[in-house]
Amino acid sequence: MRIAELSRRTGVPVPTIKYYLREGLLPAGELTSPNQARYDEAHLHRLRLVRALAEVGGLSIAAVREVLGALDDPEKSLHKAMGTVEVAVSSPVAVAEDAVAHAQAREFVERQGWTYRPRSDAFQSLVGVLATARELGHERFVGQLDGYARACGPLAEQDLDYVLGAPTKDAALEVVVVGTVLGDAALAAVRRLARREASGRREDAERGSAAGEGDREAAGGAAEGDADCR
Amino acid sequence: MRIAELSRRTGVPVPTIKYYLREGLLPAGELTSPNQARYDEAHLHRLRLVRALAEVGGLSIAAVREVLGALDDPEKSLHKAMGTVEVAVSSPVAVAEDAVAHAQAREFVERQGWTYRPRSDAFQSLVGVLATARELGHERFVGQLDGYARACGPLAEQDLDYVLGAPTKDAALEVVVVGTVLGDAALAAVRRLARREASGRREDAERGSAAGEGDREAAGGAAEGDADCR
Repeated sequence: MRIAELSRRTGVPVPTIKYYLREGLLPAGELTSPNQARYDEAHLHRLRLVRALAEVGGLSIAAVREVLGALDDPEKSLHKAMGTVEVAVSSPVAVAEDAVAHAQAREFVERQGWTYRPRSDAFQSLVGVLATARELGHERFVGQLDGYARACGPLAEQDLDYVLGAPTKDAALEVVVVGTVLGDAALAAVRRLARREASGRREDAERGSAAGEGDREAAGGAAEGDADCR
Repeated sequence: MRIAELSRRTGVPVPTIKYYLREGLLPAGELTSPNQARYDEAHLHRLRLVRALAEVGGLSIAAVREVLGALDDPEKSLHKAMGTVEVAVSSPVAVAEDAVAHAQAREFVERQGWTYRPRSDAFQSLVGVLATARELGHERFVGQLDGYARACGPLAEQDLDYVLGAPTKDAALEVVVVGTVLGDAALAAVRRLARREASGRREDAERGSAAGEGDREAAGGAAEGDADCR
């Protein structure tokens, strides 16, 4: 197919496809003439993957490149792919060394019975968040962590089951990549939906009356600004 | 204090502070001469807040502006602030209408006993993620949602408790803002730590032997690529 059809079938504008081609995220098509290339189903799938990572997952182009590298890696190690994706999806947090935040993060990790890995991106990211909370005077924030851990334990098992349920090794690699990125995006959306519900329920409870659907809709409507009017 | 001290105490480079000033995220200091301004503790706190939102939270400048607007809003409505923050932290997902994905999202929401709000950002975001999963051939993905909902119910209650635990109304507004943005960042970090642990445990189980800390460290080390070597 030509680039116009690639664009039509994926919803990605032609200039964006050309950008991805220039950045090497998408392999070149087969040149049928000096100015025209043809693309096949593999290009289609790769383009959809790039779109999923960049637009739905919000990854930078550099991060997308890292992740695609893991997929194309002949070694095809699941653990390596998981590691690459994890690093790619996390935004680096420049952390000024905050000893108290570091200690809080360490105590938290050890309280869960987890291994203390101070040089890992995830641990450093957590220290950065705790340091930021402290610097803003939010001393209570650290108390939120145990609840997060309680939620994340089952989620981690679920994520692994999903990855390991893939039919082939090649499929598993892509499942790791897509599952992680889309999983994070889905979790964020579900989290917002759950918060909206909880917030609406508390509003109803405060009102004290048997609030009908109309009231809940109005209360819920206020919670997302103009969003419902789009 | 002068801008150099503001920079030193927050870790934000002077050019970045000047950028925030130009963008109106930070109010101008008090001019003491045509080329010099003085800043006070309020500026310091505001700058830390901007840094938390933009650098730790990863919000765009436009989103930071929206969120600060909610904080400065004389009406000081908690629900309005929550709504503004929620919209600001979510990346808009351009959704080509996918009826199957929409139906999947609706069934999911109704299965939880939640209100179906098809025009809300959160719902549309979920539809977009499901549509992307389907388009990539990941038919199993929708099965992950119920587990996410189970985790997010308690998290939503916890988030609300945190917000409502603030001492004053002004403090509550900032807690909504910071709690949401930092909370998401902390949850993402904890999620990665939990996944790392779960992955390591399964590796140990596969090995079958009584894997010691050394083995787990090695197994865990592979899961984050070069991260541990930084």
